[in-house]
Amino acid sequence: MLFLVHMQVRIPPDADKAFTDALKAEEKAFSQQLQRDGKWRHLWRVAGEYANYSVFDVGSNDELHEVLSALPLFPYMQISVTPLAQHPSAIATN
Amino acid sequence: MLFLVHMQVRIPPDADKAFTDALKAEEKAFSQQLQRDGKWRHLWRVAGEYANYSVFDVGSNDELHEVLSALPLFPYMQISVTPLAQHPSAIATN
Amino acid sequence: MLFLVHMQVRIPPDADKAFTDALKAEEKAFSQQLQRDGKWRHLWRVAGEYANYSVFDVGSNDELHEVLSALPLFPYMQISVTPLAQHPSAIATN
Amino acid sequence: MLFLVHMQVRIPPDADKAFTDALKAEEKAFSQQLQRDGKWRHLWRVAGEYANYSVFDVGSNDELHEVLSALPLFPYMQISVTPLAQHPSAIATN
Amino acid sequence: MLFLVHMQVRIPPDADKAFTDALKAEEKAFSQQLQRDGKWRHLWRVAGEYANYSVFDVGSNDELHEVLSALPLFPYMQISVTPLAQHPSAIATN
Amino acid sequence: MLFLVHMQVRIPPDADKAFTDALKAEEKAFSQQLQRDGKWRHLWRVAGEYANYSVFDVGSNDELHEVLSALPLFPYMQISVTPLAQHPSAIATN
Amino acid sequence: MLFLVHMQVRIPPDADKAFTDALKAEEKAFSQQLQRDGKWRHLWRVAGEYANYSVFDVGSNDELHEVLSALPLFPYMQISVTPLAQHPSAIATN
Amino acid sequence: MLFLVHMQVRIPPDADKAFTDALKAEEKAFSQQLQRDGKWRHLWRVAGEYANYSVFDVGSNDELHEVLSALPLFPYMQISVTPLAQHPSAIATN
Amino acid sequence: MLFLVHMQVRIPPDADKAFTDALKAEEKAFSQQLQRDGKWRHLWRVAGEYANYSVFDVGSNDELHEVLSALPLFPYMQISVTPLAQHPSAIATN
Amino acid sequence: MLFLVHMQVRIPPDADKAFTDALKAEEKAFSQQLQRDGKWRHLWRVAGEYANYSVFDVGSNDELHEVLSALPLFPYMQISVTPLAQHPSAIATN
Repeated sequence: MLFLVHMQVRIPPDADKAFTDALKAEEKAFSQQLQRDGKWRHLWRVAGEYANYSVFDVGSNDELHEVLSALPLFPYMQISVTPLAQHPSAIATN
Repeated sequence: MLFLVHMQVRIPPDADKAFTDALKAEEKAFSQQLQRDGKWRHLWRVAGEYANYSVFDVGSNDELHEVLSALPLFPYMQISVTPLAQHPSAIATN
Repeated sequence: MLFLVHMQVRIPPDADKAFTDALKAEEKAFSQQLQRDGKWRHLWRVAGEYANYSVFDVGSNDELHEVLSALPLFPYMQISVTPLAQHPSAIATN
Repeated sequence: MLFLVHMQVRIPPDADKAFTDALKAEEKAFSQQLQRDGKWRHLWRVAGEYANYSVFDVGSNDELHEVLSALPLFPYMQISVTPLAQHPSAIATN
Repeated sequence: MLFLVHMQVRIPPDADKAFTDALKAEEKAFSQQLQRDGKWRHLWRVAGEYANYSVFDVGSNDELHEVLSALPLFPYMQISVTPLAQHPSAIATN
Repeated sequence: MLFLVHMQVRIPPDADKAFTDALKAEEKAFSQQLQRDGKWRHLWRVAGEYANYSVFDVGSNDELHEVLSALPLFPYMQISVTPLAQHPSAIATN
Repeated sequence: MLFLVHMQVRIPPDADKAFTDALKAEEKAFSQQLQRDGKWRHLWRVAGEYANYSVFDVGSNDELHEVLSALPLFPYMQISVTPLAQHPSAIATN
Repeated sequence: MLFLVHMQVRIPPDADKAFTDALKAEEKAFSQQLQRDGKWRHLWRVAGEYANYSVFDVGSNDELHEVLSALPLFPYMQISVTPLAQHPSAIATN
Repeated sequence: MLFLVHMQVRIPPDADKAFTDALKAEEKAFSQQLQRDGKWRHLWRVAGEYANYSVFDVGSNDELHEVLSALPLFPYMQISVTPLAQHPSAIATN
Repeated sequence: MLFLVHMQVRIPPDADKAFTDALKAEEKAFSQQLQRDGKWRHLWRVAGEYANYSVFDVGSNDELHEVLSALPLFPYMQISVTPLAQHPSAIATN
């Protein structure tokens, strides 16, 4: 089941750099594991912004929330979720 | 080069049904040809709305505009475009 | 799996009354069947507006879209969907 | 009498963790007591966000305000309230 | 129990004048009866707009919806409702 | 002459509590004096929010600004003003 | 007493031209009389839009509403009003 | 003197095609004359939308309004204007 | 050439009072000099807000920006600019 | 390939002046190099705001993101990007 997720990262300019760099490294590792697991199906940078659009493939709303709220940068992100359904004109199955 | 495209269809309830049905059939055929050509890479229905999120893979902004403005339902759609870049944490190449 | 759905009905004042009355009767019957089936779990009127907030319990985003797009008043409604997850402080299971 | 309540929690990332953890524990206990009392009828997590949609069943606007403003996290929340009425197509009574 | 209600009237310029004049006359009579009954406690014109802010004093959300949806101009109005509670600094009781 | 005034209070969670408690006490006393003087005609709490809707009865825009900008909590409030006129269907005079 | 008024004119493209031309001529005459009377103190075109910003000098909110709602184009305009007060740094009196 | 101008064209789907085609042809000719005159310095299509961003080089706000309001499609456009100044880091003069 | 300018002042409540008082005094002196020079033609307080609407009469966009960006409170203000043109119904020349 | 980019700079008033002055100097040098390279084709100040509208000419969305995210002031800016296409009425090629 697919969800489009928009994430905007808002790290205050005066945040501790060592701390946030560590968070970003954890975020990257966590994200790549989820991608390899097939749960984080697409991850795109929004050109010009510290933001991404992603597509998640999970079994339920609960699983989606578990994954998103476990992101190391979750406290610094503004997230919005759009549930996606099969489009009748799509030649591929979701 | 990837673009996320949000399309909302707004057909007035009193539009001529035969005419708009024909447009929708043309739209579907056109869309599926573009999908087979690899230019319309993803097409998802927004659950609960007459709208879709799509990802296009085209060579330029000009090509993107040519494709979108040629859609049979273009005069009935509100469209917004977000240019996508390679995300440094993505394990796949755009 | 639960979804909060906000529906605003926008019937033009000059619409044919017999036609829209028939649609509303179909909508009511369809809605009540879905409620009896347990898929449309809650249906509340927004006080002062021709709108409702509803909670649907369906198996997937696809099922949600099938149900909502089949509503007789669908062409006259502006709908937005919020996926709901289990809240850790809730004493009931979703 | 039912009210749909949307609560978004905004705890600054640099807040004292011990203090806010204590607030969250109090919030949980307070919320569960209200749920057991039948006043906080539904509590759902918004998937992907530190937010919830809730339904309160209280006797008046005054009681609603007393309950919400007594929440331990109230100073950290952005709250909006929608009064709900009986829907003519609902098969259940509010 | 008090509710602040904002009503914006949107009558299309090409509506039948005799018909809408009749509606406005009914609206006025209905409104004045509700004012005399003490349910429509305040009625103010928003300066410069075809809109009003009103305060209703009703026993429940259901009663509020019954009153508002029975207004002759209801199909032509955009309405929003704000539930009001006793303010701790107010010297009068709601 | 009447004005509807919407006040939202935004006190940062880390503000000095003794200081803001003193401000709130001054605000209450000041507000109650204005109510007794007939200038602050209505004061209602917005249910669920640290906000109020008020109606002021003053002689001019200048007097309104003098009163509002003298509120002890003025630096912490977001205020918006709507000028009110006599409604032709109102049975009471403003 | 001064009010800043923003007026946006929205005449449907298919409106009867003779009728709306007559309205515009009446509007112009009415506006110029109010300017000569000193009530419509300033009238500026918003560059690039069928809109104006104006400053009215009237004795009350009621008088402002009487003037604005009597404008021949009132049914075709979206109007918003901002009450203005004396600025402490202004060298002129309002 | 430069102005960034955003124009969105909103032609109703049921407009007379011969009439609007004629308007579009006039618009194109008029636009190209202004470009040759150096007044309409840049004209870009917004990718995916029936809209453009343009830069005008005119002597005054009045001249800008004269040009924009004379556009054949002016009654069908929503226009917004942003005045531009010399940027201190720009290597070219406006 | 006239411009309507909206300025909202946002001084953080915890700013150093001596410093911001000095800025405000400079702002007042600077503003009054510009008013005497005829460049800051009108200055009105928005009733109930720490904001003003002003009309500037300057020779160009560049001069407008020079004046506004030189305001002592510029770093604390949110400013928006609307270019004004001669209105065909105005009896006065801009 | 052209992109319109809107950049708003938001430096907190209490930021270290020496540090942000250094950033601004780096930003200026970086920006001017990109202008000389033909990648930052236009750079205009928004009159009255600490913001600019720019046009970039780059080979891809990826190149655009690389350039924008490398700006020294990137952490202090809110950026939005609009992809531009050739306009059929433009006499110049993008």
